[in-house]
Amino acid sequence: MASEIFLYWGSGSGPCWRVMLALEEKGLSGYGNKLISFDKTEHKSEEILKLNPRGQVPTFKHGNIVINESMAAIVYLEDTFKGQGTELIPSEPTKKALVLQRTMESNNLAEKTGKLLYYFFRNKDNIDEAVVSPLKADLKDEVLIWEGYLKELGGDSFIAGKDFTLADCCLFPAVAMLVRQGVDLDKSAPNLGKYYKTVKDRPSAQASWPPHFKESPNQDRFKDVM
Amino acid sequence: MASEIFLYWGSGSGPCWRVMLALEEKGLSGYGNKLISFDKTEHKSEEILKLNPRGQVPTFKHGNIVINESMAAIVYLEDTFKGQGTELIPSEPTKKALVLQRTMESNNLAEKTGKLLYYFFRNKDNIDEAVVSPLKADLKDEVLIWEGYLKELGGDSFIAGKDFTLADCCLFPAVAMLVRQGVDLDKSAPNLGKYYKTVKDRPSAQASWPPHFKESPNQDRFKDVM
Repeated sequence: MASEIFLYWGSGSGPCWRVMLALEEKGLSGYGNKLISFDKTEHKSEEILKLNPRGQVPTFKHGNIVINESMAAIVYLEDTFKGQGTELIPSEPTKKALVLQRTMESNNLAEKTGKLLYYFFRNKDNIDEAVVSPLKADLKDEVLIWEGYLKELGGDSFIAGKDFTLADCCLFPAVAMLVRQGVDLDKSAPNLGKYYKTVKDRPSAQASWPPHFKESPNQDRFKDVM
Repeated sequence: MASEIFLYWGSGSGPCWRVMLALEEKGLSGYGNKLISFDKTEHKSEEILKLNPRGQVPTFKHGNIVINESMAAIVYLEDTFKGQGTELIPSEPTKKALVLQRTMESNNLAEKTGKLLYYFFRNKDNIDEAVVSPLKADLKDEVLIWEGYLKELGGDSFIAGKDFTLADCCLFPAVAMLVRQGVDLDKSAPNLGKYYKTVKDRPSAQASWPPHFKESPNQDRFKDVM
């Protein structure tokens, strides 16, 4: 089944990582894939554009089916491979509702992380504190919302309770980016720090860890966010 | 069943309208609801905040289950009321994939419409063409992507084929906002113009039409977008 799947992905892209986590959790290791270089703008190559007119990754194929929105791909994967691997969307209504809510809500953390990061990428040596401060404050508030959710769960390991779900496929890449950019979660958001370590150690996270996170040291762009 | 459902909503909010369309299509007319006023910042009221800490609408309840992300609420509704009303996510894999793809992808149109609109709201009499022009160009490109999808379908009525689906619950509110803001779709994107008229006439759209769209004339903020 994994042989019918092909994924174009970029290292460190949150949306790509969501799909990669879901693939591993569904027992689909060994899927076909191609790492594209953002630096070489390979996401705008002919090869990608013919499958994904927006020229973005993830670009995901299952047989002749193409899905390019990460949220769509992971819902599709869970639905199509329901009986195998980790159950990413539970069937019990209350649990299902919470998983769907946190899955979609995680876009808030991804967006606020992305906004700040893109500002740093675009403005490198010319950082305007008047622009950056409100972005940092927004991100801090957002991080504390997720810290609060975990605290409320009172010791459960994952963001929608005691089991790993679709919501973790989406939340974890954004949390890992915080750490990558120098947020000390253990100090500023200890429940999130514990969460990070728990998910980081899962085989799915290890198998899909962004290569450039391993090859270069963590950054300090977010060091004073929290 | 509709009696167990309650929705807080705002007139003209795309995310609210998605949920309202899905509720009507699933045969859940008559659900409990409260129209909140954005002008009076009622979305930040105690009543909403205790259910939705982000202070946003939609705020959706089904019994004791609360879901506040529109995409999560509509996936939950389809799954929970699978056997009744319109089938919003088909089970055939190719069709399902396209519906999920277009559902999530519709966020692009919603975001580009929203960005331009918020700029106009915030800057009323002080519009900077240097800011507004690229936002308009982005929106135009986006509208043409959706026009292209409909053209490719070659006469099908809805955005994922011949049947109304979840993707239409999400796309239609953004298309209706274009018309509301003065885009002449018949002239600039005729397939989208036809789509608008088809969905507009559905009982679900009529039942959920934003009251202030009916009570005040269309605007011309987007008149030169296309």
